[in-house]
Amino acid sequence: MISSTQNPQIKHLLLLQQKSSQRRAEGLFVVEGRREVEHCLAAGYQLRMAFVCEEIAETPFSLPKAVEIVPVARNVYERIAYRGGTEGIVAVVEARNARLADLKLSSSPLIVVLESVEKPGNLGAVLRSADAAGADAVIVCDPLTDLYNPNLIRSAVGALFTVPCVACTTEECIAFFKEKGIKILTAQLQDSSLYYDTPMTGPTAIVMGTEATGLTDLWRKEADAHIRIPMLGRLDSLNVSVSAAILLFEAVRQRQVYNNVK
Amino acid sequence: MISSTQNPQIKHLLLLQQKSSQRRAEGLFVVEGRREVEHCLAAGYQLRMAFVCEEIAETPFSLPKAVEIVPVARNVYERIAYRGGTEGIVAVVEARNARLADLKLSSSPLIVVLESVEKPGNLGAVLRSADAAGADAVIVCDPLTDLYNPNLIRSAVGALFTVPCVACTTEECIAFFKEKGIKILTAQLQDSSLYYDTPMTGPTAIVMGTEATGLTDLWRKEADAHIRIPMLGRLDSLNVSVSAAILLFEAVRQRQVYNNVK
Repeated sequence: MISSTQNPQIKHLLLLQQKSSQRRAEGLFVVEGRREVEHCLAAGYQLRMAFVCEEIAETPFSLPKAVEIVPVARNVYERIAYRGGTEGIVAVVEARNARLADLKLSSSPLIVVLESVEKPGNLGAVLRSADAAGADAVIVCDPLTDLYNPNLIRSAVGALFTVPCVACTTEECIAFFKEKGIKILTAQLQDSSLYYDTPMTGPTAIVMGTEATGLTDLWRKEADAHIRIPMLGRLDSLNVSVSAAILLFEAVRQRQVYNNVK
Repeated sequence: MISSTQNPQIKHLLLLQQKSSQRRAEGLFVVEGRREVEHCLAAGYQLRMAFVCEEIAETPFSLPKAVEIVPVARNVYERIAYRGGTEGIVAVVEARNARLADLKLSSSPLIVVLESVEKPGNLGAVLRSADAAGADAVIVCDPLTDLYNPNLIRSAVGALFTVPCVACTTEECIAFFKEKGIKILTAQLQDSSLYYDTPMTGPTAIVMGTEATGLTDLWRKEADAHIRIPMLGRLDSLNVSVSAAILLFEAVRQRQVYNNVK
């Protein structure tokens, strides 16, 4: 059992948690927590190793035989865990860089696009909302986005593994939508219709800019419709994951009401 | 100008930021950032003093004459500011403990109730969603909730001052709704209807439990309807501010479509 936080394996794990460059160079990332690891395995990711603190884990973990299990002491676990050591497992996992061509879409896809990511935690929260709405994918139009940032994984509470997530360029994304016949709805306050007056029963991509600067012109120009959430209070914006959820669930509602699709 | 973080006024400010007991004992709390201070003043709160770093502030602040302005050096400001010193103002404000009887409701109120608050940041995010939906109030059924927690204020981005927020007991809250003829819709997965099949055009309170344990029986029993957001993915819950936003904006949609109210 590893009982020192100075152990080389622990130091390496901390590097993977802390440095995007390290994750990229090695093609590895870190997943913490029982449920997250289960979702990760269910999604077909390959675990390299699992640091397990048996003292903390309430029940044993059932992991594939190929996974190297490294027992760690409580003090070590508390150093490597973000969430206060309640679950007892931190795993090192092989990254997969999904591309647009890899996406398996339903007959009437529902997709969320973020033009860029201000905070990794926001993308995680969008993934969580996308999972709940049964969305086909989340696409980030910034090919350098690190989808394996620990804040992202944490705020997604497993949704990074249940919702396909792709990072690509805006041009690639628009070409993909045009080819697949997916309507582009851009969320923007100016020059837009109320979102609930806009049909979302067909193949639909909801495209969102940043809270700070909104969407770029390319998206606005290529859009099939501009939609807005009415801002009825005194503030001028919503959190991006909240906006995404409102728009996604309007699509869910319309599809249930008009297509009788659940 | 205060240039030492050991200055007694600065130490007192830090105490107010860090300790709920200190805030309660003095009836004071702390607001940071230009926009937040503006919303706070617009809501009629009384500022006691404002710590201002002119080096950081891009433009001067227009504050009421009665407010004591305390210039601070950059190093002091960076110690007292949570957000990396981008705005240059941290104010000490007199708390107000609004009661249910103080609420000024519209003819067809829309209210969010949280049975308890797991994380202050979640309540702040709910307030932000409530502001956007033009809700009349947010009620927290835990009379000991500290509405002036810094994480709450920060995540509300001003909405604590634009949306009336009351902390009271569940019994008081239910009695208030019955007296005012406000329908109680409880968000719960079991024994419930889809939220978009439930009318929300009349006086409506949307009641939400915690992510961990859901709602207590008292609310379920007193409810006029039980509603659920369909969970179409693999995960089993949404963030409370996301859920609140989905339900609030369904009320907005219905009111616009059926009442022609914007």
